[in-house]
Amino acid sequence: MPDRTVFFISDGTGITAETFGKAILAQFELTTRQVRLPFTDTADKAHQAVRQINHTYEIENRKPIVFTTLVNMEVLKVIQEGCKGMLLDMFGTFVNPLETELGVKSHHRVGRFSDASKSQEYHDRIDAINYALAHDDGQSNRDLQGADVILAGVSRSGKTPTSLYLAMQHGLKAANYPLIPEDFERRQLPPALMPYRKKIFGLTIQPERLAEIRNERRPNSRYASLDNCRMEVAEAEAMMRRAGIRWLSTTTKSIEEIATTILQEIKP
Amino acid sequence: MPDRTVFFISDGTGITAETFGKAILAQFELTTRQVRLPFTDTADKAHQAVRQINHTYEIENRKPIVFTTLVNMEVLKVIQEGCKGMLLDMFGTFVNPLETELGVKSHHRVGRFSDASKSQEYHDRIDAINYALAHDDGQSNRDLQGADVILAGVSRSGKTPTSLYLAMQHGLKAANYPLIPEDFERRQLPPALMPYRKKIFGLTIQPERLAEIRNERRPNSRYASLDNCRMEVAEAEAMMRRAGIRWLSTTTKSIEEIATTILQEIKP
Repeated sequence: MPDRTVFFISDGTGITAETFGKAILAQFELTTRQVRLPFTDTADKAHQAVRQINHTYEIENRKPIVFTTLVNMEVLKVIQEGCKGMLLDMFGTFVNPLETELGVKSHHRVGRFSDASKSQEYHDRIDAINYALAHDDGQSNRDLQGADVILAGVSRSGKTPTSLYLAMQHGLKAANYPLIPEDFERRQLPPALMPYRKKIFGLTIQPERLAEIRNERRPNSRYASLDNCRMEVAEAEAMMRRAGIRWLSTTTKSIEEIATTILQEIKP
Repeated sequence: MPDRTVFFISDGTGITAETFGKAILAQFELTTRQVRLPFTDTADKAHQAVRQINHTYEIENRKPIVFTTLVNMEVLKVIQEGCKGMLLDMFGTFVNPLETELGVKSHHRVGRFSDASKSQEYHDRIDAINYALAHDDGQSNRDLQGADVILAGVSRSGKTPTSLYLAMQHGLKAANYPLIPEDFERRQLPPALMPYRKKIFGLTIQPERLAEIRNERRPNSRYASLDNCRMEVAEAEAMMRRAGIRWLSTTTKSIEEIATTILQEIKP
């Protein structure tokens, strides 16, 4: 049985409530059962949530932890008054002091994604996703001058998920380009990339980890062998060093960490 | 000039600090200049952050707003003692009351992504991204039985970004399949999908919005014409209705909202 039941309640998608709650829970050794209650945007739904939380309390005999990012005051009031769980209310806690500091009232608008589909920022993100897909794995050399960044590295060094993440979360147009044996023989960057050297960011990886990853896809192949991985990584790193390209190792990093590091480097 | 400068400080990627801060700032009409300070994980870097914040205060003569998700107490202490901005400290505010409620100490561990590369959850996310790419736009019928969900809809109804988002954020294997004129003539779902009808989730869109989106890609084409979009959407909706497939309209929704709705529907 999990130690606690945790609820994430929001009048929108609940993404913020969940991010907020999980970041805080990560500070504890705790097994949890997690219940998301997105789109809780009426008093009726709030009463339903309260019933669910209090029922859980009765069964488990432990206070559920309730993370909320509610902006609808009517909904929040129902939860505050009825809920027997431990309420951690992100907006209530921080919005009021901010109102004082800024000298303006908050507008209690629901959701950072409301009407997202009409905003320029959202439009740019969708464009960037399409760009990343069209320029995945060196598929197209067209419009590389439109790229915000070009990721280069050996096959399975993490280029594709990082490009997609940069596009989806940050609206960056990220192309990615594999470094392959032909490039190593020529001892030069792929010709298509030469004019855009300043936009290139290299990804490298420990040969041992690379061999593991490649073996999952093509077990016991020459491609996945440790010898070959060692050779490719050494050649790729030598090439990037010669070309003066910035690079990082993805071995122990998540795509979020890789993307954040790249952002820091390319944004002055 | 923006109304305020806002800092996001974290010992990790800063993704949580930024999500947290932006959600709160979205409650105000406010123009901001945003500065990210990720990987602030030593007292030295904290002192540097303090100097930057206080310098901003002197120049702008308005308190910068500082969102932090710092778990390193030494770093946090430097910021708390030196920073002249308005400090909104997510962890400090919520972790302490939780320690009391849970009866355990938090371990002040940095970052929800630490060593992510070794976790099963992370591995599943990367697998899911590869799956979504391999099964984008009906590219492959192989292993459709492995899909958690199959999105179906007319071209440009939002299938691809939604599939990628479901994979990247939730580790779900999402295939997507276009509904095309041949299907409408046959008046049946694409044959490859028939065995997996229960996994299908339909996306539809208002013809006017669809024509706008298609016109950006292929201006003045038959494909993008309002008449054709009306026909395709009507046929697709009729087909989904006949097949008893759940669907939603993406017209005014962001990919986050579409994904959350689908998650609610497919997870019991």
